[in-house]
Formats: sequence, structure tokens, C-alpha cells
Amino acid sequence: MKTLTVGMIGGGFMAKAHSMAMASVNMFFDDGVFLKRKTIADIDEELARNAARKLGFEQYTTNWRDIIEDPEIDIVDIVTPNNMHEEMAIAAAKAGKHIICEKPLGRDAQETERILEAVEAANVKNLVAFNYRKTPAVALAKKYISEGAIGEILNFRGTYLQDWSADPASPLSWRFQKEMAGSGALGDIGTHVLDFAHYLVGDIDQVMATTKTWIPDRPIQKGTVDTLGNNKSEIKELGHVDVDDEFLTLLRFRNGVIGSIEGTRNAWGRHNFLTFEIHGEKGSIVFNYERRDELQVCFSEDPDDRRGFKTVYTGAAHPYGEGLWPIPGLGIGYSEVKIIEMHDFLQAIMTDKECEPNFRDGHKIAKVTDAILESSRLDRWVATNLSE
Amino acid sequence: MKTLTVGMIGGGFMAKAHSMAMASVNMFFDDGVFLKRKTIADIDEELARNAARKLGFEQYTTNWRDIIEDPEIDIVDIVTPNNMHEEMAIAAAKAGKHIICEKPLGRDAQETERILEAVEAANVKNLVAFNYRKTPAVALAKKYISEGAIGEILNFRGTYLQDWSADPASPLSWRFQKEMAGSGALGDIGTHVLDFAHYLVGDIDQVMATTKTWIPDRPIQKGTVDTLGNNKSEIKELGHVDVDDEFLTLLRFRNGVIGSIEGTRNAWGRHNFLTFEIHGEKGSIVFNYERRDELQVCFSEDPDDRRGFKTVYTGAAHPYGEGLWPIPGLGIGYSEVKIIEMHDFLQAIMTDKECEPNFRDGHKIAKVTDAILESSRLDRWVATNLSE
Amino acid sequence: MKTLTVGMIGGGFMAKAHSMAMASVNMFFDDGVFLKRKTIADIDEELARNAARKLGFEQYTTNWRDIIEDPEIDIVDIVTPNNMHEEMAIAAAKAGKHIICEKPLGRDAQETERILEAVEAANVKNLVAFNYRKTPAVALAKKYISEGAIGEILNFRGTYLQDWSADPASPLSWRFQKEMAGSGALGDIGTHVLDFAHYLVGDIDQVMATTKTWIPDRPIQKGTVDTLGNNKSEIKELGHVDVDDEFLTLLRFRNGVIGSIEGTRNAWGRHNFLTFEIHGEKGSIVFNYERRDELQVCFSEDPDDRRGFKTVYTGAAHPYGEGLWPIPGLGIGYSEVKIIEMHDFLQAIMTDKECEPNFRDGHKIAKVTDAILESSRLDRWVATNLSE
Amino acid sequence: MKTLTVGMIGGGFMAKAHSMAMASVNMFFDDGVFLKRKTIADIDEELARNAARKLGFEQYTTNWRDIIEDPEIDIVDIVTPNNMHEEMAIAAAKAGKHIICEKPLGRDAQETERILEAVEAANVKNLVAFNYRKTPAVALAKKYISEGAIGEILNFRGTYLQDWSADPASPLSWRFQKEMAGSGALGDIGTHVLDFAHYLVGDIDQVMATTKTWIPDRPIQKGTVDTLGNNKSEIKELGHVDVDDEFLTLLRFRNGVIGSIEGTRNAWGRHNFLTFEIHGEKGSIVFNYERRDELQVCFSEDPDDRRGFKTVYTGAAHPYGEGLWPIPGLGIGYSEVKIIEMHDFLQAIMTDKECEPNFRDGHKIAKVTDAILESSRLDRWVATNLSE
Repeated sequence: MKTLTVGMIGGGFMAKAHSMAMASVNMFFDDGVFLKRKTIADIDEELARNAARKLGFEQYTTNWRDIIEDPEIDIVDIVTPNNMHEEMAIAAAKAGKHIICEKPLGRDAQETERILEAVEAANVKNLVAFNYRKTPAVALAKKYISEGAIGEILNFRGTYLQDWSADPASPLSWRFQKEMAGSGALGDIGTHVLDFAHYLVGDIDQVMATTKTWIPDRPIQKGTVDTLGNNKSEIKELGHVDVDDEFLTLLRFRNGVIGSIEGTRNAWGRHNFLTFEIHGEKGSIVFNYERRDELQVCFSEDPDDRRGFKTVYTGAAHPYGEGLWPIPGLGIGYSEVKIIEMHDFLQAIMTDKECEPNFRDGHKIAKVTDAILESSRLDRWVATNLSE
Repeated sequence: MKTLTVGMIGGGFMAKAHSMAMASVNMFFDDGVFLKRKTIADIDEELARNAARKLGFEQYTTNWRDIIEDPEIDIVDIVTPNNMHEEMAIAAAKAGKHIICEKPLGRDAQETERILEAVEAANVKNLVAFNYRKTPAVALAKKYISEGAIGEILNFRGTYLQDWSADPASPLSWRFQKEMAGSGALGDIGTHVLDFAHYLVGDIDQVMATTKTWIPDRPIQKGTVDTLGNNKSEIKELGHVDVDDEFLTLLRFRNGVIGSIEGTRNAWGRHNFLTFEIHGEKGSIVFNYERRDELQVCFSEDPDDRRGFKTVYTGAAHPYGEGLWPIPGLGIGYSEVKIIEMHDFLQAIMTDKECEPNFRDGHKIAKVTDAILESSRLDRWVATNLSE
Repeated sequence: MKTLTVGMIGGGFMAKAHSMAMASVNMFFDDGVFLKRKTIADIDEELARNAARKLGFEQYTTNWRDIIEDPEIDIVDIVTPNNMHEEMAIAAAKAGKHIICEKPLGRDAQETERILEAVEAANVKNLVAFNYRKTPAVALAKKYISEGAIGEILNFRGTYLQDWSADPASPLSWRFQKEMAGSGALGDIGTHVLDFAHYLVGDIDQVMATTKTWIPDRPIQKGTVDTLGNNKSEIKELGHVDVDDEFLTLLRFRNGVIGSIEGTRNAWGRHNFLTFEIHGEKGSIVFNYERRDELQVCFSEDPDDRRGFKTVYTGAAHPYGEGLWPIPGLGIGYSEVKIIEMHDFLQAIMTDKECEPNFRDGHKIAKVTDAILESSRLDRWVATNLSE
Repeated sequence: MKTLTVGMIGGGFMAKAHSMAMASVNMFFDDGVFLKRKTIADIDEELARNAARKLGFEQYTTNWRDIIEDPEIDIVDIVTPNNMHEEMAIAAAKAGKHIICEKPLGRDAQETERILEAVEAANVKNLVAFNYRKTPAVALAKKYISEGAIGEILNFRGTYLQDWSADPASPLSWRFQKEMAGSGALGDIGTHVLDFAHYLVGDIDQVMATTKTWIPDRPIQKGTVDTLGNNKSEIKELGHVDVDDEFLTLLRFRNGVIGSIEGTRNAWGRHNFLTFEIHGEKGSIVFNYERRDELQVCFSEDPDDRRGFKTVYTGAAHPYGEGLWPIPGLGIGYSEVKIIEMHDFLQAIMTDKECEPNFRDGHKIAKVTDAILESSRLDRWVATNLSE
């Protein structure tokens, strides 16, 4: 058994998710490697100290460069606000570290291009945390599509709907500030559903989008960690939101498929309503992350009196089944999804193959994201230029 | 009790639906009027004869003008392919008949404008059969919105997905021919969901659309009546489809709401998947006609630990409840929806008020439909010019 | 085309349902016979007069024997409270009329035995209105079972849950009085789910039941027609409930299948929640009338990675599809269910075959019902003695 | 921060689940204590060695008594087949260890009584792993009930349906042998739903049950660890099943509530279909573990036109929300449920309060289980004598 040493940058809720995966991945999958959680960094010292203690890191620092400069550290895991990704990822790449980076990879495609160049120059493994494609039901959709079970794809419709910031009293965290986030609902959640489209259908060629900022001012947040609307401030001082709350876009894929996406954080009653519906010549596939144990699939080849959407609960017979729970419905939670993501990352390192999704995928999504914003600004179809 | 006499033009499946409503509406609602089914017309004599017998008309004809010219007839019900609507409706209006016309009102807005002018000049009651808005759950959504229960609306997403023509062996009925239908999925099913948008949100100002014809050739159908894919021909002779199988559109409403619609007849596993999801500042509403007894609604004002989508089954406490079944869940079927539609039409006649939806609504939908086709052709946002 | 003449006894909500079916059945199915609605009887003269007018009968009477004695009348349709069924049905049989009788056939098996003897002696067609088995999805379940698609049946679980009388202010209609109803939730709704068990699985051999009356006193109702909780009285005068609000029973079928049923009118949020779940050696079937367009079925023979419950929407490819709507999901409502029931009744008359379900079925259900009440009283398993 | 040292007995799939919880609980909840995984025992040496490596234990043994005798070990976690629980738990108690024991606590109530006496004499913390009540949605149901939100409870219906052994080729693991398991579906899965009844409603007073063994012989399994049907043997040698595949029972609770439970491992298409539906005087609650992020609740006090089942997704506003993920729908999986269970166990130790559910609960469930088997044998109601 090999051991790899990890440094993590950022001490918020994603640090918890990634650390849990590091601590548990060996219990589920046999990747031949253990992860040693060595150092965690956060600019807020108390947060860093607590994170180290709770998440099982040996030490903490308020200077993330300590991690970059530590020769013992093999893997750098970046779970900070988006504006820090470029500097950190490039530094980590130059130091020869393998890198996990939270999504979106950067605030725009110029950043992600530089990040991509750095990891390719350094030849280090790199994974962008579009974790939702790791859900077994999504991987099963990919498998069905690859097997031709629904024939040529015609249409993709995706949504990502949340309501944690639908309340105007939900504070102005970094997610509502262009300087730190790059964009709003689009970068934060929209990129996940764009990744579904990219993963399941292929390259997006053109987009036609519109965006809206429904709540232009929000209470200024005290403290750095975003609590996703759970701590509503008493403070009345408002700050300006300069990113989108919602986006709608039409899609044209290179292979002729058409589609649409809706992303919003102003959908009361929706929480993590990340869905897709795909129509093919020979069938359809439907997924909703809020019921993530399930994949719905209809095959046209079924007899006329026995055709309909099947609800398949993923388990041992499906992707990643060998490592997860023995019975479908025991339950895929956020933990299991993050554990699978970590497993795939470790597999890439140990077998020296490319991660999926990697920074090249992250860069493509950034180009699509930029095109969506430009389309909204220009009010016309915009090419993504993915093949450049 | 008054009696009004009806002539029906067209003998296909919609003739059945309308006739059932005429025969039953008095059993459900007390509108003070009975309908006498006098004459039914179809160009196919055998079809006309059978229709008269099965649907309870006193006589039949192969010449629809017999109905127009019959002074005893008060109401003309037009359930023919779209290309006949203009001529028939204008003739009926000129003869002073009240008119029910199946949707879409015409093949394009030029036709519908002439139809509208005719009924307004004649001052006859007129109803365009966007029947789905008569579903009690849809009427309940309207009521909630009118009461302010979900606050200002932000977003409307609609779909109408079917699969009866997803099979390339499904024959080339009139619904696939521009000359007769005007457009494809857009006019046939898309207009219903456009009517939802129009009814629940308001006037659509601009559209940005794309359309596709997935199956360019289909077996030429023998016989005139469309069986909606249920009779698949052995015949190999193919004819060309010159209308859309699918459309996607973004929407901008006059009141600032944004939205999107997907309509397709190539969605395996979807049958009459006519849905909307509306997000408002204070709540959300979701409807799916395939589960039409139910309306889902989330109110932001519910306490944090008791908030979620409610599934409300419509019954005596909801719109049209006084005339329908005493217990929710006994069941709203297509019959009940058509009966409500007929009841509203009779109410309009008896109380001398405007029908809803009337030909003015039908004309507006035609303008939006034309704009969608133009947008798809020009690949840019197109104004609907509803207020002209 | 033949014409048969109908007399209906009873003017409440079931009269509406049956009359609608009589007026519409020819539009859906080609049975070669028309029904003439001649006379409707109710002891309340105003009710009878209004019913005749609204439901399309030529005349009314307050004396139901007028119908029995009318030689023109071919069919007697009994939609009265249960205590009148025996006298009316036996009189109708003796007069040589075909009979439709609402469920339960009688207040107990002694009554139903006498009714059964009368119709068998008179050799008239007889149908007991367990209409829910006419739902196309239920008929499809029967078809799957008959084809062996789920193998030998192991278990049947049924429920019928409502909430219209969960409120103590819901009035004391005849449904809460043993003298008129025979039993409470058991006879009123439980018999429908017992009919499902009987139809889909086979004869019930033994039952082990418990019953409860949750609300012992209710406001005394003014007027005779039960409004199913929709008219809550201001009146404070209470009367005693002497029937069950709820029953639970275990079942043993003659063929070795085991099962259970829960029936209650005190289930807040459930309206017409009439369900079954059947497990077989090779698959499972699940139905819920609140979503009656759908049947869920799982086949064990599907491949391991493609197995799951299919949601089949009934349409043209399924039982009764030739007469109903051309597209699944247009909608099966209570109207469509009652129309199918009427069609089957007319078919039995025209082809001189036995109706299903007939009074023999009704008598069997009564024997099971009696056994359930006796089991609850004696607190032990009780045999149904169906084969005696 | 305190550290407690753990020894685990058993190396199968539950060992994985418990170890993951031990490794992660501090990341979610702040209980002031870390768990050191020291020793894992399994009679199969290779299994023990692999388990130690994968699950992060410092060492392994094939003799479970090594764990009992190790003075450094504070907590013994028993995840073996049921027949070993008594001997191990009593030994652990005598050695003064806190104990986690998988369910059912013993093969019968005689065993569980002796186990209970031992832990009470030793005054050690004890938890029986009825983990499903730790699901946040189930804890939310408990909260609603405690707050009186649905009034007095009338009825409880529970099911636990699986299909992993519905295939006769699924091997004869220890779960099908009375000597090792005590009972079949009843002890294995039925005890979880009995625990729901016990937790949410109260003590069960009487049961009336029937049981079935549908597949009397199964292929004899090679190897000791049960793979829950995932490894189907080629071997044709059959062994006899002497436990139940399915049970049905009626319930009478001490507080007057009635209910029923169905448990089976022969329900094709059901995987971990652990459900309850509770009707109260003022509302209803419905839960299905296969959709465990959701709780459905209907409140009678809602207005007539806004009443219906709400689907509440658990999150920060609900039980255990402070430690879990910030947004509802990120996902509760089996991991999260086991982490909560471990958190509650650690809280009990650190605050010196009783665990819930503890061995007293486990003993009560065993008495109910015994009564169910006796009822099935005697074919009559059997008292549980819980208060003796």
C-alpha cells in the first residue's frame, strides 16, 4: 500500500466533504493507496485550527503557500472561493502536485486556460470537482447512452434549481460578488448541469442565453465562510449583487443535438433540483439528483403494452456498485458521491490515466459559461469555440 | 330551460370529446340550457354517418355549409384540420352562430386575425379549445396566483412532450403537412403550453426559438382521420414532413418574467406530458397534466421546518368543484376537462359575457407561434407585437 | 341498433355518474345498443324532479315501484342507500329486468344470497358496481397476471384511504348508520379493495380483522343525500355512529396467497387512495387509483442492470384502449371508468354472457365482509365459506 | 479532546458502515471525542486482515476475546451474525466496555433479557443499531408527533420490502438459518419497522401474525460473509431454509392505536422499501426510506383549498441539521445515517445519558418478535408482555 500526502486549502463546508471522502475512500474501494491528511490552510486562523482538528489534519496554517512549498505533500485540494483558484492551482502545478480543484475551475476561461496550461506543462493529475456526474445513476445514464440503449440523442434539457438565496434576507456572501465568484447561479450551480450536458451528450457549440438578477441588494455578510443562507443576518446594511440569480439558455451541440438549461437560486421548494431529461431515437433517460438513487429510463423497443419509464435503483449491478452498499436503496448521499469522486482521482494517479472530469473539461465549461454571459449581454447566439 | 342547437364540423376523435361534453354538461353544471345535437358534417360520408349515430346527432352531411345555412343551428363546433378553420369560422360568424373552434385557431396570425375580425363584427360568442387550462388544478394555479399566494412571478417553464410520432413508422397524417397544419409540434401541442403561459403569466413580448424536424419522411397515410400513431401502415411509400417535430423557445413576458418552453412529439415515454413550473417571489407552483388531479405548490411563508411542496388534489373546495365529483381523486379525465370547457362556453352565452379563452386569445397565441417560427428562421429574438 | 330503456332508482351523486355513462357509452364503444333514460325515482320529490331534468330522464317518480312495474323498462339501475338494495333488486329480478346495483350489493350476506337467488331464478343480467376494477390500469394488471408475467402470486396488500369524514364535524349521513349501511368504511370502500383481491388473486378463504370507530358521534344530517363531508352542518345535535370508521384485516386466499388490507375514512391527506401491491414469483405490480392512468410493474426477467418498476400509462395498446382516448395521459377520470363499466354491462346483455362483476361476486364479497366483522368481534381468524 | 478506543467484532459489510462512521463523525458533529480504531476480529483470518487494512484498524485478530480482554479498549462494536451477540455482548459488558450491537439484539427475548441484565449490571452505555430511526426525516416525524402536529395517533402502517433474496438462486447465507439468525425477514428487516412503531407510536401490546417461507431450499453458500444475493453460486447443492421469508402482522398498541406491518424479502422491484404511514386526528405522516431525504406530512388545520401532503426535504432546519450538509437534497445516504447513529452514541457516553435506542429497546423488540412468531404458530392474537 502506498501513502499519498494531502494539503487542503480552504476550511468551509467543501473541506468537510473532501476530508470525509479522504478518510473513507479505502473502506469502499481498493485503490492501493492511503491518503494522509497533513496540512489544512485558511486565512481565518481559528477556522483553520478547528478545521484541522475536526477534519483530521495533522496541522494547520493561515498561509496556503506553506502547502505548496511542502515537499512531502503530493496532492493539493483547493476548496476556496473561485477568485483564488488560478493562483493556487498554478502554484501547485509548478510545485508538481496533483490537484483537485472545486468548481468552477476559474472565474472565466482566461483563468482556466492558464490553469490548464500549467497542469499540462507540469504533467500532474488534475480533477475539477463536478462531483454530481459521479452519482451512480448518472454514470449509469452514461453507460446506457454508450451502449446505444436510447439510440442517437435528440434533445437534452437540464435544470439546477435551488432556493437557499430566494429570501432577500439571505446574506451577500462571496457567491454574490463577481470579483470573487466570476458569475452567480451560472458558475455556482449552472456549471454542474453544463457538465452533465458535456459528459452525456458532447461538446456544446453555441448558446443563446438570458440572465436575471432578481434581488439586487442583500445584507452584507460578516465572516468569510458562506453558510448558504442558513445564517440570516440581523444587520440591515445592504451591499450590491453584481452577478446573475438565474440564467436560461438554449444549446446547440456539435453533434446536432439541441437543448436547454435553466439554473436559478430563486426557486422556492427546490433545494438541489439538479435534473436532466434526454430524448433519444430509441428511448429516454431522466434523472433528478433530489432522488439520486434512481434513474428513469424508457426503451422504445419494449412491447407496446409494456413500455414506460423504468425506475432503476442503483446498486451492486451498476457503476461503482462493487465498492458501495450491497443493496440498492441503502442510500447514496453526498458522502457516497464524494467518495466515488476521490476513488476516481486515486485510480487516475495509481494507473497513470487522465482524471475525469479534468481541467480540460473545466476549461471547456468555462468557455461555455463565458459564451452564456456574452450571449446574455449581446442578446444573440454565441459560439463557444471549444475546438480552438 | 333553454335549448340551443348544435352543428359540428369534423368527425374525428375531437368530435367524440366535444359530443360527450355536450351530452353530459347538464349533469354536472346548472347552466340553464340544453344542447341539441342536430347535424354533424364530414367529407367522408361513411365517417359522417357513423359519427352521427355514435355521437347522437340527428343527421349528417358531407357538406359543412349545410350547417352554416341551417337557421335552427345556434352553435357551430369546428373540429377539423387547421386549414379549414378560417373559412368555416368566418362563414359561421357571418351566419350569426356562436363558435367553438379547435386549436390552433388558424395556421398563422393572418388567418386568425381575419377570423377574429369576423366574430367581433358578428358579435357572436367564440371559444378556442385550449381545454387544458380548464383542468381544475390549472384553474387553481390561476387562483393562487391571483390571490398573490406566490407573489410576483419570476419564471415560467413549460413542456409538452409526447411520443406518439417518435416512431418513424407513425404515418404522415395531416399533422405533418404545413399546408394543412400550419406548423408541427408547435401548433399542435405547443400552443397549449403557450396558452398556459399567456393565461397564468401574461402577454409574451419576445421569443427566441429553435426548431427541428427529426423524421423527415413518413409513410403516407391512407384515409383522412389522424389516428395519432395508433395505426402504423404496412405501406412503404414515404412522404415528406415539412413541419417541426420539436421546438425550444426562450420567452420574455411584458411584465418582466422570463421563461422557456420545450415541445416535442419525439420524447419516448412521455404521452401527454404537459407541464409548467412557475417560480414567484413568495412561492412556486408545479403542474403535470399526466397527474392532472394534483397541483404542487410551495409557499415561502411556511415555517422553515414545515416548508415544502404540497400536493393538493382538486375537489369540492377548488375551482369547478361544485359541479364535479364530491371527493378529490375520484378523478379528472379528459371527459371532465371537456365538460368544464363546454360549461364555461354555455355560461358565456347565457350570461352574455366573453368566453375564455376566446378568439382574441387564439389570435395572440398565433402571433406568438408565428414569432417562434420566424425566430427559428432568423436565429434571433423576435417581438410578438401582441399590442398592435 | 337496438334500444334498451332504463329506470334509475336514487337521485344522488351516483345517479349522475351512471347517467353520464349511459349518455356517453355509445360515443366510446360500439355495443350495438342505445340506452333510453326513461324514469328516475327518488323519495324526495324535488330531488327526483331535478335529477330527471339534469340527468336527461323523461320523467320522475317518488315511487320506485313505478319503475319495476313499467313493462317498457329493460334495465333497472339501483343507486340508493344499501338498505334498499334487497327489496328493489328482488322486485326488479322478478319483473325480468336486467339490474345494475351499486356496491355493496347488500348489508350482509343473507341479503345478498336472496338477491342472488332472485336474479338467477329470473335469469337476468346483473352487475354490481365495483367500478374500480374497470380502470384500464387494473384491467392491465389482470392481463399481466393472466399471462403469467409476474408468475405465481405470493402476496396482496390493498388499501383504501379517505379523509372526507376525518373531521368530526362531517355529518352523520346514512353511511354512518348500521341500519342503512350495514357496515362503515368496510362496506363503503373496503368492498372495492376486496373486489380487487377477489378479481386479481382469487377467493379469500380466511380473514383476521380488527375494526375501530374513531368518531363515536357526529352532527345529525338534515336532508337525505349524502354530500360526503362537503356540507358541514352548523347544528350541534349529535347522533351515534354504530359502524366502523376503519378496518384492518389479514387475508388468506384459497390458493395459498397471503395478504392484508387497510381501509379507513380517517386518513388526512388521502382522498381516493385505493391501492394494491402484488408480489409474484417473477415480478410485482403496484396500482394507486389517485394516479389511475398508471400501472407500475417490475419483471424479474429484466437484466440485472435494467430492472425496476416501469410506469406504464394506459392507452390504445391496453385494455379498453380501442374505445377510449388515442393517447395515454389524455386522461382516465371517474367518467371514463363508469363508461367502461356501462360498456361491459351492455356487452353482457348483447352477447348474452355473464357480467363481471356480477351478483355472485357481490355475494362473495358480502360473505368476506361478514367474516371480517365476525373476526373483529371474535378476535380470531374466521372462514369465509365461499364455496358453500 | 478525549480519545476512546474501539474494538470491532465482525468483518462484513456492516463493519465497513460502522468504520466509516467512526472515521467521519467528528467532521460532522462536535462531540468532544475521537475514536481510535484499534482491533478488528473475524474468524476468517484473511477477511480480518483485509478489514483491518481497509477499515483503518491498527491490528486484527481471529479471536474476538482479544478485544474483550484488551484494557485499552473502551468500546466494543458487535457486527456479527445474531447467534454470537449474546456471548459477545455479555462478555463485553462484564469487561466494562460500552457496546454497540447490530440488530436484532439477540435471536430471541431470552437472549436479549440476559444481554440487557448484563449491561445494566455493568452500567455501560449500550446501543442497538436500529439505525433507520436516525434518518433526519424519521427524527422529524418524531418531532412533529411530539409537538402534537398531527394530534392523537390512530393508525400505523409499516412495510419493509426487499428483493435481494427473491431469486431462488440467491444463496443460503446465515440469514436463512434459524440457528444463526433466530428468524428470517422478521428479525433481519422487520425489527427495523417494529422499531419505527415503537419509537413513533409507543409500546406494542398485542400482535396477530402470519409468516411464510416462499423458497424452502437454497444453494448452500461457500464462505461466511453474506453478500445479500450479489454472489449467486453455480453450485446446485441445496440446503433447507428454516426461517420466514415474509411476515404480516396486525398490531395493537398500549395507547389504543392499531396498525399493521408487512415485511418480505420476496418483493421484486423493492430494495430498501422501509416505509411508514401514520394517521392522526389532525394530520398524517408518510415516510419511505428509498426517498429518505423527504418526509410527507399533511396537516388538517390547513385551509380547505390549500390542504395536501407536503414533501419536506430535510436540511439545516431539521433534526441533526447543524452537523450535516447545508442544503437539503445534497443528500442523506447510508453513510450519513450511520454517522448520526455514531454521534448519538458518543453524545450518550460524553454526557452520561442513555443511548437511544438501547438494549432495553432491543429487548422490547425481541419480545414483540417472539410474540409475532408465536402468534403465527398459534394462529391467534398474542400479548407481548412488554411491561413485565
